[in-house]
Amino acid sequence: MEEIGKFQLQGTDGYARAATLQTAHGPIQTPVFMAVGTRATVKTMTPEELTDNGCQVVLGNTYHLHLRPGEDIVKKMGGLHKFMNWSGPILTDSGGFQVFSLSKLRKISEEGVEFQSHIDGAKLFISPEKSMEIQMDLGADIIMAFDECPPYPCDEKRLVESMDLTIRWLKRSKERMDRKESLLFGIVQGGLSYDLRMQSLEKTLDVDLPGYALGGFSVGEPIHMMHELVKKVGHQMPDQKPRYLMGVGTPLDLVLAVDAGIDMFDCVMPTRVARNGTLYTSQGKLSIKRAQYKDDPAPLDPECGCYTCQNYSKAYLRHLFMTGEFLGSRLNTIHNLHYYFHLMAGAREAILEGCWSQYRDKIIQTFT
Amino acid sequence: MEEIGKFQLQGTDGYARAATLQTAHGPIQTPVFMAVGTRATVKTMTPEELTDNGCQVVLGNTYHLHLRPGEDIVKKMGGLHKFMNWSGPILTDSGGFQVFSLSKLRKISEEGVEFQSHIDGAKLFISPEKSMEIQMDLGADIIMAFDECPPYPCDEKRLVESMDLTIRWLKRSKERMDRKESLLFGIVQGGLSYDLRMQSLEKTLDVDLPGYALGGFSVGEPIHMMHELVKKVGHQMPDQKPRYLMGVGTPLDLVLAVDAGIDMFDCVMPTRVARNGTLYTSQGKLSIKRAQYKDDPAPLDPECGCYTCQNYSKAYLRHLFMTGEFLGSRLNTIHNLHYYFHLMAGAREAILEGCWSQYRDKIIQTFT
Repeated sequence: MEEIGKFQLQGTDGYARAATLQTAHGPIQTPVFMAVGTRATVKTMTPEELTDNGCQVVLGNTYHLHLRPGEDIVKKMGGLHKFMNWSGPILTDSGGFQVFSLSKLRKISEEGVEFQSHIDGAKLFISPEKSMEIQMDLGADIIMAFDECPPYPCDEKRLVESMDLTIRWLKRSKERMDRKESLLFGIVQGGLSYDLRMQSLEKTLDVDLPGYALGGFSVGEPIHMMHELVKKVGHQMPDQKPRYLMGVGTPLDLVLAVDAGIDMFDCVMPTRVARNGTLYTSQGKLSIKRAQYKDDPAPLDPECGCYTCQNYSKAYLRHLFMTGEFLGSRLNTIHNLHYYFHLMAGAREAILEGCWSQYRDKIIQTFT
Repeated sequence: MEEIGKFQLQGTDGYARAATLQTAHGPIQTPVFMAVGTRATVKTMTPEELTDNGCQVVLGNTYHLHLRPGEDIVKKMGGLHKFMNWSGPILTDSGGFQVFSLSKLRKISEEGVEFQSHIDGAKLFISPEKSMEIQMDLGADIIMAFDECPPYPCDEKRLVESMDLTIRWLKRSKERMDRKESLLFGIVQGGLSYDLRMQSLEKTLDVDLPGYALGGFSVGEPIHMMHELVKKVGHQMPDQKPRYLMGVGTPLDLVLAVDAGIDMFDCVMPTRVARNGTLYTSQGKLSIKRAQYKDDPAPLDPECGCYTCQNYSKAYLRHLFMTGEFLGSRLNTIHNLHYYFHLMAGAREAILEGCWSQYRDKIIQTFT
């Protein structure tokens, strides 16, 4: 078996990279989109459906799983892999982002964050150490450092303080994370300021880790500012380590970020919009609720090989959506995840074959 | 290919029967539980999951499909089988029961029923002829005659009127139903009166049809009264035709009715209660929300071979239920449908092997 954490570049084309990261639950081939399974399930999907559609990695969430069912129960049930019946790699988010976006009455101190559960209002406390303990109990293959995620907009003073706190918390995270089978990734913050991002990157790199992430996006900032920043910062992250852009994004966002040298992504987008009837196809975005589809016998995407497109018409999918039937959410989710996984598999192929720019431009054209 | 509508008894044990009914989409082996797919989908399930769990027949509903998406659209999309991607037999309910249970401001006349859509309040009219036309457009293998379903309780005068109207509507249904690939079943009414049921049966049998049903149950009557009536009437229905008890019921109801000579069943029970966290097992009923299951690593039923029991713990199913995750509804539905289909497959085997009474008594013991 390959060494856990080993990262091998198989090819580059411009800044875009094709690589392999070894984890305790098998290799991850990049660029990769990771399916979000916040509460120990990728909404509506079985693990087999994920695998069939090309899923390599599932995300779990420390904040949600700490609240329900509790990491003690997951650990007792044999860890998150066994609990949810997923045998591939799992990455867990540290809970930092969710504490800031979901919970109320949070109180940040040097020690950690006190907050109220968004479910029952219970007072809870997560420190870097606690976040590591939860993620180790879950048995994650990739563990994210506990960070503070500043809001947008945010003044520079607050950004600098937050960035420095995140660095101190990173060191405590590393100190506590002693599970050999897990890989700890650090998170670069700094808001939308290039200078602060570069400072944060430099300080984060002082801590030697098997991977580094860009955090703090998807907080309401104008999307072009994220694009610009990732374009400037992405390729300056370490060459020999995986680069992960957290919580991003649309197919266009992904392709622009791969172009900047990013390797890993996660986002609720494909699964969430699927349940709202929005589908990504080789012809662009499509809203299944539109009346024009009510008697359309064609599949969502004639170029798609997913189960949904092989077996169902737009007319049927529209009917399921309009009647609020569960199966509609399932079939739409299958299609969107298949699109995302294959978008990244196609990117990998194009990079290895040296035709990345054509691939990139085709996707840009489709979605702009 | 066997003649459509051919009904062959393979064996009997007491009044209980094992038989085969030929349809345009293949044979149905009885006793059979048919999965309810009201709006062109068995809630949460794909057709493949139905087949994998032992489903033979799916029910569609005239009332719901007439409202959404409309039988014109289903017909244009190639019929209900193609629309929902189900290649086995389909039975459609006539809409009679739903007009009486779901719609408002209904006005019954000799001609048919005027009613308001429960979705948008639109005024609609269904006659026996219209019901046949809708079911033929859907392309059902088994078409139910349009009947009037009296409420419970109901005085005898109203019951007699309703019963006679249902007979006149049956004759008009037969007159109009001219699709060679479809089988028309008549519905016996008469409320909870044995005498009226026998009168209705006699008059219904005057119309020669490939199958007969007992309708008008599951309207709030005490369950033991249904049991008694079915026990007395079931075996007096024609020996050489399939006997269908509509809208029933629990595992206990099914077993008692098979014992009375009934061949076919449908009910929303297993799918509906699954979504509410109630599961049928070889040890009886179980509510997955109970706190005792929060760290229970065992499957729902150690004797069950379904996908859910093979792959997931009660602790995980409880977690999915408590967090309201879609996958919980799916996994619970798989289990309950598997239980029902295998309950009937086991009944068939027991009848053919001459040990029906032991099989029956074991189920009665489990659920009483």
